Amino acid sequence: MNVIERHESAVRSYCRSFPRTFTQARGHEIWDREGRRYLDFFAGAGALNYGHNHPELKRALLDYVESDGIAHSLDMATGAKEAFLERFHQVILEPRGLSHRVMFPGPTGTNAVEAALKLARKVTGRTNVLSFTNGFHGMTLGSLSVTGNGFKRAGAGLPLNGTTTLPFDGYSGAEAGSLELVERLLEDSGSGVDAPAAAIVETVQGEGGLNVASRPWLQGLEQLLRRHGALLILDDIQAGCGRTGRFFSFEEAGLRPDLVCLSKSISGYGLPMSLVLIRPDLDDWEPGEHNGTFRGNNHAFVTATAALEFWAGDELERETARKAATAAARLEEIAAGCGVPATARGRGLMRGIAFEAEGLAGAAARGCFERGLILETSGAEDQVLKLLPPLTLGDEALDEGLGIIEESVRAAVQASAASAAGGAS
Amino acid sequence: MNVIERHESAVRSYCRSFPRTFTQARGHEIWDREGRRYLDFFAGAGALNYGHNHPELKRALLDYVESDGIAHSLDMATGAKEAFLERFHQVILEPRGLSHRVMFPGPTGTNAVEAALKLARKVTGRTNVLSFTNGFHGMTLGSLSVTGNGFKRAGAGLPLNGTTTLPFDGYSGAEAGSLELVERLLEDSGSGVDAPAAAIVETVQGEGGLNVASRPWLQGLEQLLRRHGALLILDDIQAGCGRTGRFFSFEEAGLRPDLVCLSKSISGYGLPMSLVLIRPDLDDWEPGEHNGTFRGNNHAFVTATAALEFWAGDELERETARKAATAAARLEEIAAGCGVPATARGRGLMRGIAFEAEGLAGAAARGCFERGLILETSGAEDQVLKLLPPLTLGDEALDEGLGIIEESVRAAVQASAASAAGGAS
Amino acid sequence: MNVIERHESAVRSYCRSFPRTFTQARGHEIWDREGRRYLDFFAGAGALNYGHNHPELKRALLDYVESDGIAHSLDMATGAKEAFLERFHQVILEPRGLSHRVMFPGPTGTNAVEAALKLARKVTGRTNVLSFTNGFHGMTLGSLSVTGNGFKRAGAGLPLNGTTTLPFDGYSGAEAGSLELVERLLEDSGSGVDAPAAAIVETVQGEGGLNVASRPWLQGLEQLLRRHGALLILDDIQAGCGRTGRFFSFEEAGLRPDLVCLSKSISGYGLPMSLVLIRPDLDDWEPGEHNGTFRGNNHAFVTATAALEFWAGDELERETARKAATAAARLEEIAAGCGVPATARGRGLMRGIAFEAEGLAGAAARGCFERGLILETSGAEDQVLKLLPPLTLGDEALDEGLGIIEESVRAAVQASAASAAGGAS
Amino acid sequence: MNVIERHESAVRSYCRSFPRTFTQARGHEIWDREGRRYLDFFAGAGALNYGHNHPELKRALLDYVESDGIAHSLDMATGAKEAFLERFHQVILEPRGLSHRVMFPGPTGTNAVEAALKLARKVTGRTNVLSFTNGFHGMTLGSLSVTGNGFKRAGAGLPLNGTTTLPFDGYSGAEAGSLELVERLLEDSGSGVDAPAAAIVETVQGEGGLNVASRPWLQGLEQLLRRHGALLILDDIQAGCGRTGRFFSFEEAGLRPDLVCLSKSISGYGLPMSLVLIRPDLDDWEPGEHNGTFRGNNHAFVTATAALEFWAGDELERETARKAATAAARLEEIAAGCGVPATARGRGLMRGIAFEAEGLAGAAARGCFERGLILETSGAEDQVLKLLPPLTLGDEALDEGLGIIEESVRAAVQASAASAAGGAS
Repeated sequence: MNVIERHESAVRSYCRSFPRTFTQARGHEIWDREGRRYLDFFAGAGALNYGHNHPELKRALLDYVESDGIAHSLDMATGAKEAFLERFHQVILEPRGLSHRVMFPGPTGTNAVEAALKLARKVTGRTNVLSFTNGFHGMTLGSLSVTGNGFKRAGAGLPLNGTTTLPFDGYSGAEAGSLELVERLLEDSGSGVDAPAAAIVETVQGEGGLNVASRPWLQGLEQLLRRHGALLILDDIQAGCGRTGRFFSFEEAGLRPDLVCLSKSISGYGLPMSLVLIRPDLDDWEPGEHNGTFRGNNHAFVTATAALEFWAGDELERETARKAATAAARLEEIAAGCGVPATARGRGLMRGIAFEAEGLAGAAARGCFERGLILETSGAEDQVLKLLPPLTLGDEALDEGLGIIEESVRAAVQASAASAAGGAS
Repeated sequence: MNVIERHESAVRSYCRSFPRTFTQARGHEIWDREGRRYLDFFAGAGALNYGHNHPELKRALLDYVESDGIAHSLDMATGAKEAFLERFHQVILEPRGLSHRVMFPGPTGTNAVEAALKLARKVTGRTNVLSFTNGFHGMTLGSLSVTGNGFKRAGAGLPLNGTTTLPFDGYSGAEAGSLELVERLLEDSGSGVDAPAAAIVETVQGEGGLNVASRPWLQGLEQLLRRHGALLILDDIQAGCGRTGRFFSFEEAGLRPDLVCLSKSISGYGLPMSLVLIRPDLDDWEPGEHNGTFRGNNHAFVTATAALEFWAGDELERETARKAATAAARLEEIAAGCGVPATARGRGLMRGIAFEAEGLAGAAARGCFERGLILETSGAEDQVLKLLPPLTLGDEALDEGLGIIEESVRAAVQASAASAAGGAS
Repeated sequence: MNVIERHESAVRSYCRSFPRTFTQARGHEIWDREGRRYLDFFAGAGALNYGHNHPELKRALLDYVESDGIAHSLDMATGAKEAFLERFHQVILEPRGLSHRVMFPGPTGTNAVEAALKLARKVTGRTNVLSFTNGFHGMTLGSLSVTGNGFKRAGAGLPLNGTTTLPFDGYSGAEAGSLELVERLLEDSGSGVDAPAAAIVETVQGEGGLNVASRPWLQGLEQLLRRHGALLILDDIQAGCGRTGRFFSFEEAGLRPDLVCLSKSISGYGLPMSLVLIRPDLDDWEPGEHNGTFRGNNHAFVTATAALEFWAGDELERETARKAATAAARLEEIAAGCGVPATARGRGLMRGIAFEAEGLAGAAARGCFERGLILETSGAEDQVLKLLPPLTLGDEALDEGLGIIEESVRAAVQASAASAAGGAS
Repeated sequence: MNVIERHESAVRSYCRSFPRTFTQARGHEIWDREGRRYLDFFAGAGALNYGHNHPELKRALLDYVESDGIAHSLDMATGAKEAFLERFHQVILEPRGLSHRVMFPGPTGTNAVEAALKLARKVTGRTNVLSFTNGFHGMTLGSLSVTGNGFKRAGAGLPLNGTTTLPFDGYSGAEAGSLELVERLLEDSGSGVDAPAAAIVETVQGEGGLNVASRPWLQGLEQLLRRHGALLILDDIQAGCGRTGRFFSFEEAGLRPDLVCLSKSISGYGLPMSLVLIRPDLDDWEPGEHNGTFRGNNHAFVTATAALEFWAGDELERETARKAATAAARLEEIAAGCGVPATARGRGLMRGIAFEAEGLAGAAARGCFERGLILETSGAEDQVLKLLPPLTLGDEALDEGLGIIEESVRAAVQASAASAAGGAS
């Protein structure tokens, strides 16, 4: 770790939680330099839904690189981009009745969010954007202004403007988190909430603590926005690409978002790529009005196209549902049996356990790492132990991981109790 | 082009200027689907300083992918990252007496700029940032607020705040562009210019029209900022990585910037990657205060490490200087002999011709494309024909490209004269 | 009205609702040029709590002017200012156990609000200010940013920043308007609501529709702010100076606001004057850090000092309570008996009737004017008929005014029913 | 001074420079409680152009108050307002060929500025406003954002947005202060200066240090704004009402401003009053879109109407020009003969001496006060001794004041030299 400490900025974080140098990975497994193997239930914070170095994607990438396929193309037309666009339309959009145009806004999630915010403001002529408590949308100034986390927000060094924060579904008890307040604020011309260009929302708040929006809340939000001439921006960067079962996390609720942000697992291989899907009648961009050097990352187009084959049939979706059920049941057991107040939560293979006691989730995560399992915590107070295993992992690996979690939670609870008792004696 | 038109957003731009589907590339050459070859003097807008698919970088990448090297690692320690950090320190920083820490802010230039702005505001406790006329720093809200282009700025859909625009070197005649005004504004407590956290500057404004800052202006700016407790953020995203001859574009002027933004050619292969170099005493980040999903793009680390070998000796630097001199002389000839007011400008292999008459640069660029040469225009009014050839191209290719330019400029001038005569008759 | 129409800007408003030229006034009565008498239940929107041209204040003013007392003094010390400060301390602050310093921020309410916002941000080092739905605090940029009314906000021509709007007591049903949501948003570091410098609140929202905050809500808000290191700014511009019975509207709830804004009736004679009361330990201003040409309006100091005699005993307070009870009972009768959904609301002599049906309050107000009574409507949709009679009016006048209101409400309801029936036939 | 120190906020300032309690005033004279007489060359910072308690204005006010004329009327029509509007049109607007509508935005200068900024943004649909170095326009958030003084700006506690600061005429030498830079920034779509709604400018910067804009600069600015679809807002709050000779300070340059802000001396008696004059075709306000409790200060209307008689003939204008010439000559003598670098500056009876050495102007002002003359310093560093005597003062008083200034400047220079010598020994 010497090299990192000497040369890398203090901003680095995960290398502190997982203090090993990693060198190789396959599927749900990752190895450090000393050859120690870890189960990876973190999966690039959701960027590796198909696991590390999936052989078919790897083959496609190697072939492309070997043949001197174009790596970098800005937004020129390339064979790799055309292949992706066609296949994405065939496999994803068309079967779901979507006719959205695809924008390549630059290869990271925050680029997609910034582009969506710009377009929403442009087409509505309004400046205010609604965001939700504990939402997470990125670290650049526009995305940060719709992100809830106070520590991240403070990093801006500037007041963050142009947005209104509202309670997410279920926030602060059923009443306040209902849409009634949102509706009242939008209807009341004296509320002080300026007419919004859009609301940006996640169906499951990954970074915010695995808060799951209910189907009626999402549907109600969509209708309410429509009534008020505001767009629905669905940030499906973490919850999309099959993480909750279907390709889009909003399919279950039957939403038709105006703008969809995708990134993380869209390339399938962990390569930087992101998209904004735009309802065709809203595609009011002038050529080049938003741009970026790496919006044509062709290696990512190649692996993304290969990854779309997971969606040509329904096996992945069915399998994810099955594994999700297994994980849900087991996590509920663990939460119920751990001896402290804890709740299982999440959707699909985006799951976890929320602890009331401060520090428990972190202690459990550290225990997991010692036992060979990588996973992270989430929530504003890091109160949630969060699992994002590759969707492609086998039952055995899932079982192994859940076992480590069970053991680690138990140990963390015991250590915490022991330390409390020690403190009391 | 059908696929693109049907499925991609209207925001696409270069595929309109270069309406072919490209499939393969090597060095300074690129081929379309029909097998037609083009000279590439655009080079990914400066992201391909070592050309397309350089064989040594390609070999390193293939080996890494084949061995299941980790592709995506967030900011965990990986072997690929450590190798890059060590080599970057040995080959780039140490020989130049720099002890900057390296931050991986997310893999695009705008991520680097946003991170630098945040850090400058944090460490100084000030909010205002100075930027310069015709500067270009990116498309996300923070970067856009320090970018001059009015068309891009309007895309924000929000007033852009927290910055003060000042005249770049030579702007509007020597007087106004001198540093006297900047100095006076900072010294005068009644000027209305709030004490700045930093100034962000390019040594050569690539997108802004190939405006070259002089050595005294840059040195004066650095001293002036220092006197006023403000940081110097050097955006070397386009002009760095050897584009102007040396690795950093600010070496000639002997600057010691507090923060340096690098991206584009840093990976060497056109893969998304970016860095912020931070003076060690300013590295006041909290862990995770800025983050991003793709800040650990290991494929890029691998090719970037391989590309550093270009800088282990001085051949590339010497060769670039030699070719730059050739290009400069030839472009001056073309400008002088083209029959209309035109000026050659630029530094290193970042050069071009500025035309007074509207539309001429665009017409010449279109002519080049028809003759098999890809290059772009720059400047707020697209008034500059801009060359960014791979630094690694041979003399013959340089000559071929310059010949096409000469021919295309002449044809564009003639067509323009003919059309003016036609309009007058 | 010819002169006004020819020469005054289209922004004029009340001269449209009350299209007469007024020339003389005494107590609760006002006369137009033709000598027609009106009862004035508008009282300068609360600036004339002691009626027009009160004889004792008038005497004091005439004596002062006749003796060449200083009219305008910026913030130099004058005899008139010292007399006010001493008497204000003796009669108002000391008996209430308050040791606040008095700031003269410029003679209008919005100056006081702007100054309070500045000071709150300065002493806390935070930028965010909490405001409440349907709050009204003024028309300059800072005050407007904490004002709810959408029509007024849009007038800014700029996004209004640096504030968070929250539901006022009782907003949108008991649940959402409770403090639970506010508390949760402040406690949750992921809520997206930045730590506030202060909250600014009215105990009764005059312009916002006579919304009355309950005692527990106000007390809870004060405690909550204290727990979170935020100041309580009490805007008592309309509800203060005895309008709700006691001198300060917050006395009943036992609040100890950090900053209090006073204006409107503080001069007693309708002369421009305003104050910010500042908890002494928060009085961190540098000399001249906020200023204004008319912050030393000595005529107003003279009448304000004379008006303080109303508060040397408790008669005004007792009488206001008595009249308020009369008015409350009668308004409830009118509301209950008017045949359409209507509710009496308000506190002290700041009362009215809220109608559900659009336009009814306006029609009733027009009817009142035709019958010789001046009053206004309030609320974002002008849905509330609002009474602000001089506190000093006699029982007979109060009765006369309430009679006109009863008659006018009845007539308006009938006309509305007739028009609906006509529309239906 | 005890009362003030005990009860008034620390923000008070002039009572520190002039530590006496003042009680009476007439014309250019003011007396403290102990009966000591002072010459007043401060004149309410320009709010008392006709001196204190002018007998004819006083008579008009006393008559009005005695007859129970309406004091406070919001924006209802009153006899007093109509009289003012008619006479203002006859005496001021019509003879100058102006057809502007009159807006009463609230009775202080900053209200006028805020209203003008709102209207300019509304009618142009643009948000950016140009302001100038060392301009001063007020202390509320909008006005402060176009004010140059860094100490005042910092008081906002928030970044000030929506404006671009540009060099005033003559700033930093002739070149930078010329309009060339402004023109270039507006013409160049890559300059980073967003298309402006308006520029706000003073012809003579009173608070900013008596900087005088030349006629060609003002005319050039007006034309340049017109070419770019931006409004000219002329802030004539301090320089207007005859201070520079003619009623408007911009008459000499022949400007036709789109919006004019007036306040300070408009009421003639030092009573709070302010106006925005609006080109009729720009009067796009909705009724009540901007408002304020004290926009109908009828006492001020009465004295303002009486004061207009000063402008029915040309005597005041001629006399002011004559006295200005006397003052100018004498100040130049004093500056030239004082033995240190100093320059006389100003226009009309808005004049002073700028000293290079820090603290000299302040020392001279203190000396004047000790010798019975009240005047202030101005400029960001208080480097200018500034005279604003009543326009109505007699030759003898002018001479007396100039004599005190001469003596005080000499004494201050000697004391400074002595202290420097002492320091050196």
